[in-house]
Amino acid sequence: MVNVAVDAMGGDNAPVQIVKGAVEAVNANKEIKVFLVGKEPVIKEELSKYTYDMTQMEVVHASEVIETAEPPVMAIRKKKDSSIVKALYMVKDGSCDAFVSSGSTGAVLVGGQVIVGRIKGVERPPLAPLIPTENGVSLLIDCGANVDARPSHLIQFARMGSIYMESIMGIKNPRVGIVNIGAEEEKGNALVKETFPLLKDCQDINFIGSVEARDIPAGVADVVVCEAFVGNVILKLYEGVGATLIKKVKGGMMTSLRSKLGALLVKPALKSTLRSFDVQEYGGAPLLGLNGLVVKTHGSATEIEIKNTILQCLDFKKQQINEKIREKLGTQD
Amino acid sequence: MVNVAVDAMGGDNAPVQIVKGAVEAVNANKEIKVFLVGKEPVIKEELSKYTYDMTQMEVVHASEVIETAEPPVMAIRKKKDSSIVKALYMVKDGSCDAFVSSGSTGAVLVGGQVIVGRIKGVERPPLAPLIPTENGVSLLIDCGANVDARPSHLIQFARMGSIYMESIMGIKNPRVGIVNIGAEEEKGNALVKETFPLLKDCQDINFIGSVEARDIPAGVADVVVCEAFVGNVILKLYEGVGATLIKKVKGGMMTSLRSKLGALLVKPALKSTLRSFDVQEYGGAPLLGLNGLVVKTHGSATEIEIKNTILQCLDFKKQQINEKIREKLGTQD
Repeated sequence: MVNVAVDAMGGDNAPVQIVKGAVEAVNANKEIKVFLVGKEPVIKEELSKYTYDMTQMEVVHASEVIETAEPPVMAIRKKKDSSIVKALYMVKDGSCDAFVSSGSTGAVLVGGQVIVGRIKGVERPPLAPLIPTENGVSLLIDCGANVDARPSHLIQFARMGSIYMESIMGIKNPRVGIVNIGAEEEKGNALVKETFPLLKDCQDINFIGSVEARDIPAGVADVVVCEAFVGNVILKLYEGVGATLIKKVKGGMMTSLRSKLGALLVKPALKSTLRSFDVQEYGGAPLLGLNGLVVKTHGSATEIEIKNTILQCLDFKKQQINEKIREKLGTQD
Repeated sequence: MVNVAVDAMGGDNAPVQIVKGAVEAVNANKEIKVFLVGKEPVIKEELSKYTYDMTQMEVVHASEVIETAEPPVMAIRKKKDSSIVKALYMVKDGSCDAFVSSGSTGAVLVGGQVIVGRIKGVERPPLAPLIPTENGVSLLIDCGANVDARPSHLIQFARMGSIYMESIMGIKNPRVGIVNIGAEEEKGNALVKETFPLLKDCQDINFIGSVEARDIPAGVADVVVCEAFVGNVILKLYEGVGATLIKKVKGGMMTSLRSKLGALLVKPALKSTLRSFDVQEYGGAPLLGLNGLVVKTHGSATEIEIKNTILQCLDFKKQQINEKIREKLGTQD
């Protein structure tokens, strides 16, 4: 059995779609138990709409909610009875294997590190979402947990990312690239220039060299390593360019009677195409390297993303990701 | 009369499309004279295909070509008779007002700074392309000229970008945003945190605060300020996500007979929509802050981009961009 604490109060669609996604997850898999953390009366009212195996669902009352705009460090320290803090303590004390939240990214990241804690030897836990590419997905690591990283951090991101892609996505010997502004080794900023030769020396990493941003959507690397500021820009621009382009395509189709008729015909095919390029389809982003699993979903996550993310927690445990990280990166001190 | 030196040997489509674009530019405007720099026999053969006013076109022989893969500093130093070096000296000695090249970005950037030289007071000349947005264009500055910038550089980028957008694009009081990973002032890496309050204090800049990458395509800022590594990632990801998404949309339309029929009907409308989101449509990227104008087009530039870029040089001179930069940023030493 895998126990997953879910923040019932976080994100734009809480609690309605969070609760719905949790119900769908337990109905889809008997090996999962969800602990819905948040305001009990609200959660219970939502739950009353559905049928599910009662032994797979528990409500844990938390009277406070951390808002997205709150400064994260202060919020984690002060709101001891918030859904995020309570759920993180459930991962820390081992009663839950994982925590899923659509709430404040800052609070989840800070809380994950402060409350759940890092695996000994992991210098910085990176946030690592899957992003859609032409033929599948790539892991973008790091993407918002720690800005101004050092080369040693990027090496660890490459190792953890490789473990994740190999174990969860079944990609043997995943190709690791470093985000750069040119293909040659001498290109880049100080961080990339320093990291490049170190990555080349890692015998356990299938390092393919620099990856230009232009080639990321084509899927040239399975693990795309970068510092968090750059990673965050990549992730958000992916969403932004996609959204604007789709809006323009749709608008363009409405410009003449001829194209309007055509739009009716292409609509179903277009819909499934665009879904395959929607970052939400690939579940939440794990914060790797913690003593437990913490997953951040989009603030706008709907029940599909919540369900998929909860189900991913099962794979994460079964594939013993944390044991593998501990083995490769762990130290005794 | 505006004299424009054009690198006839640079880029994927040289010399054929470069020469064609130059001819189209002089045929479109009587106030332009183009100096085609490169291998004379080849250029003359291309020119013989067209009719144009001979007083508006001159060929300047250069026996060498700098290849894209060559280390730029060395190439500029050694290949004195290359089209890039010769053309840059024509800007330096005042016989030309501007230089346009689709060749090696590194060589153009290094050569621009070393040969043409910076306006006194400008610390670093940024590369500033226009990028398409939902309703128009934004200026992305800096985008590949200098990585690991300092706050004072970013302030100058904001000033030069404002001058450019106001004078060339006619946008009164252009909105300036700094690329960041969150909307709040306390967010960001060390560089952004240090730059933010300084930008806020600039009375002559219409600073609107942080801009998240997600919102750039929506056109929330007219001038998007960032350090060159991040800017390069943004520019190239724009192209990459766009290309992959369009490929997917086209592929998706071919999945059924119904959608294939629809595709035929939407094709013309879709084509013009996608053109408006093509970075090539907006001409080359100027390297701002030099004692003359140096413009880098895409390596894959076709005759349309060459023509548009040459015509832009006219606006640049008429609007006295360099005089305005000198006035705002210039110093005597």
